[in-house]
Amino acid sequence: MKYRDVLIEEITPEMEGKEVRVAGWVHAVRRVGKLVFLIVRDFTGTIQVTFRVPKEASEEEKERYKELIKKVSKLPLESAVMVVGVVRRDPRAPRGVELAGKDLVVLNEAKSPLPLDVAGKVDAHIDTRLANRPMDLRRPESQAVLRLVSLAARAIREYLYDLNFTEVFTPKIIASGSEGGAQLVPVFYFGKTAYLAQSPQLYKELLTSSLEYVFEIAPAWRHEESDTPYHLAEFISVDVEMAFADYNDVMKVLENVVKRVIDYARERGGRWLEVLGHRPPEVALPIPRITYKEAWEIIKAEGFDVEPGEDFGTPELRKLSEVLEKEGKTSGGFYFIVDWPADVRPFYTKRKGSDVVGGKEVDLSESFDLNWKHLEISSGSTRIHVRRELEEELKRRGLSPESFEWYLKWFDYGMPPHAGWGMGLQRLMVPVAGISNVRLATTFPRDMKRLVP
Amino acid sequence: MKYRDVLIEEITPEMEGKEVRVAGWVHAVRRVGKLVFLIVRDFTGTIQVTFRVPKEASEEEKERYKELIKKVSKLPLESAVMVVGVVRRDPRAPRGVELAGKDLVVLNEAKSPLPLDVAGKVDAHIDTRLANRPMDLRRPESQAVLRLVSLAARAIREYLYDLNFTEVFTPKIIASGSEGGAQLVPVFYFGKTAYLAQSPQLYKELLTSSLEYVFEIAPAWRHEESDTPYHLAEFISVDVEMAFADYNDVMKVLENVVKRVIDYARERGGRWLEVLGHRPPEVALPIPRITYKEAWEIIKAEGFDVEPGEDFGTPELRKLSEVLEKEGKTSGGFYFIVDWPADVRPFYTKRKGSDVVGGKEVDLSESFDLNWKHLEISSGSTRIHVRRELEEELKRRGLSPESFEWYLKWFDYGMPPHAGWGMGLQRLMVPVAGISNVRLATTFPRDMKRLVP
Repeated sequence: MKYRDVLIEEITPEMEGKEVRVAGWVHAVRRVGKLVFLIVRDFTGTIQVTFRVPKEASEEEKERYKELIKKVSKLPLESAVMVVGVVRRDPRAPRGVELAGKDLVVLNEAKSPLPLDVAGKVDAHIDTRLANRPMDLRRPESQAVLRLVSLAARAIREYLYDLNFTEVFTPKIIASGSEGGAQLVPVFYFGKTAYLAQSPQLYKELLTSSLEYVFEIAPAWRHEESDTPYHLAEFISVDVEMAFADYNDVMKVLENVVKRVIDYARERGGRWLEVLGHRPPEVALPIPRITYKEAWEIIKAEGFDVEPGEDFGTPELRKLSEVLEKEGKTSGGFYFIVDWPADVRPFYTKRKGSDVVGGKEVDLSESFDLNWKHLEISSGSTRIHVRRELEEELKRRGLSPESFEWYLKWFDYGMPPHAGWGMGLQRLMVPVAGISNVRLATTFPRDMKRLVP
Repeated sequence: MKYRDVLIEEITPEMEGKEVRVAGWVHAVRRVGKLVFLIVRDFTGTIQVTFRVPKEASEEEKERYKELIKKVSKLPLESAVMVVGVVRRDPRAPRGVELAGKDLVVLNEAKSPLPLDVAGKVDAHIDTRLANRPMDLRRPESQAVLRLVSLAARAIREYLYDLNFTEVFTPKIIASGSEGGAQLVPVFYFGKTAYLAQSPQLYKELLTSSLEYVFEIAPAWRHEESDTPYHLAEFISVDVEMAFADYNDVMKVLENVVKRVIDYARERGGRWLEVLGHRPPEVALPIPRITYKEAWEIIKAEGFDVEPGEDFGTPELRKLSEVLEKEGKTSGGFYFIVDWPADVRPFYTKRKGSDVVGGKEVDLSESFDLNWKHLEISSGSTRIHVRRELEEELKRRGLSPESFEWYLKWFDYGMPPHAGWGMGLQRLMVPVAGISNVRLATTFPRDMKRLVP
């Protein structure tokens, strides 16, 4: 059975008089006297179908229409249907068209009541929405966010292809973690304990010594105990790594990626942005950079008590970004913090001399975070490419070089200088799609509380 | 430090006289009298750099060149270097150019001997190659395969975008398997036992009830005990699922995907195919379809003893594909087997009456495999969209509907008729890249024996 020969958005006034077949869901039904108005929805839009008994028709045909009208008027909302109708111009209708209904087949009748309101604008609580995600995703707003996620991934890839990057698929089952063990998710692998990759870090680094410019968009896992709107146990990690490059080179790639995603959302995702009533920020390049030291001084001046050399928390970043926005030192809310203290960065981060912060000598590194307002979107650095330095950094963090030997030994054979970054795709969607929780940019989120649906 | 201002493939004869900076690896060094010839390799190609003491130069400058020549001639193979040189036309050189060397900086000296020969053509055993994968990937042939994998993923996505598909990212940590439990990989998730997704099957199905046309390219896992050239414990699964479609619709999408990948490999990956000395098969559409019944009869006639209604093994498929190729019933080696016995397909497969096979009444299904020669590349079907039928199929297979309730309950709310398929990306690379083992299309393969590197 051919369920459709056209998508709803493809029906135009120029098709007047043409018989079409659409498939979708019962979005609304309204009976007015002898007429019944049905709104059908597919993933491209909605259209009104009017069923009426034709004046010129055999008695038999009139009888069929009466039955049809009776059937349509009783249709439960969200039932899956196939509708045959004739295109009719109607200047009052959205997009100027409606269908004169000729036939309708119920493909799957929905039970009532629905677990979640689909057509209405009433926003259910996020827990209710996520528990009923298959139904929640019938809401145009929910779908719009996931369409923008798809568009973002596409924009990122197209930009990186232009720069000669190879898309890679690195292993997700690994023998040891890249950032230390606390958040590792254990896997039982052919009778052995292994872990899920927290990031493709060590693998993408190794690949710079052959494919040189590599990227990956893939799941990554952290046993994240923080139950915030911005943390997931399974997230989509966008990873870039470049041979013969330093952190300045990869910051340029990153800011262009962000700009490309936003441009793409505007140019090709305008319709989804409209559904969401959201305008992504305007980003002009370069995105401003401030050093850790400058950031620390602003935060200190605002009355926060952060030790020189320590990481910043959300309240500090919230205040910092307010100050920077006021001073015009962000680009649409985005800014880089560069040259972080070496001790708060992962072991593979290249050092960069030292500086006096708050009266204290702090060892720095060639590293950066890209933030949007208070939210860390991406982290990156120049990586160490000298084996001896890596061994020192591992030891300094209480990690054993022996357990990283599978990675370290390749640094003996001409490992190139390299740099890269990782970005949380769902976090990027906070400014791009205007969502308040990264779970809304996820089909079926996984966190401390959620393993189903 | 700026390591490069040009990639090797970007250097053309038209740039004669221009000073350029390249970065890469020492591919070969040859000293001839007072000259030294260095071949540098980056991921785009190789170039010869000739170092000679200039005739017109200060004594100091001549001394610097002599030191440089001494340094270059002692460079261990595969060391990472940065080279400054002046472009010189040379009709004898590949692509007509070489560099007159002016300076060289060793960025990371390689130890010798190397664990694997990079420049040579000697093929090491696959186990040696995979154990030394970071070094193996420096070989142009190894890189070429991964470049073609990247290109294949790109071709697939671009075709599906054109058809209005949304790329989705479904959860990889799941509460229960979709195909039964034997090959599930257990995960320890916040104190609970969960599993790694064997496929996004049930999630992509649920998404057809909102986003309708969805696809995903992502890792999937099976505790695969078969140690063959075609099985991996972690593989890249290409998944497509369409609402309001049946198996004929999605077979059309699949054959176009395969054709697009091969066209793309030829048009944009010609260089990698040349490195591999491989020509992918010519595929004309439609790819021929034979029914299970027809296949069974051919296999039977060839003397194999397969019960009517049973699945085929590799020897049977090998013979079948030989017969079909001889009769011109494949397209470049590809063919569909359709209408499989319902009992050898997963629970979500829609039934399709019955037929007499080998004198026995066999219940059939709206299902297909796409094979290339003896190799199953993809599997798909029309799915069941009626809850009651799903429950029956689960019970028939000894699975409990209760444990699938999180999935089944959404079939109560207008689940659309739908169909789809899954394809092993690495398997598709067997005909596309001409490889003999799916591990060669994988950065760092995972199987029974391999957890590192």
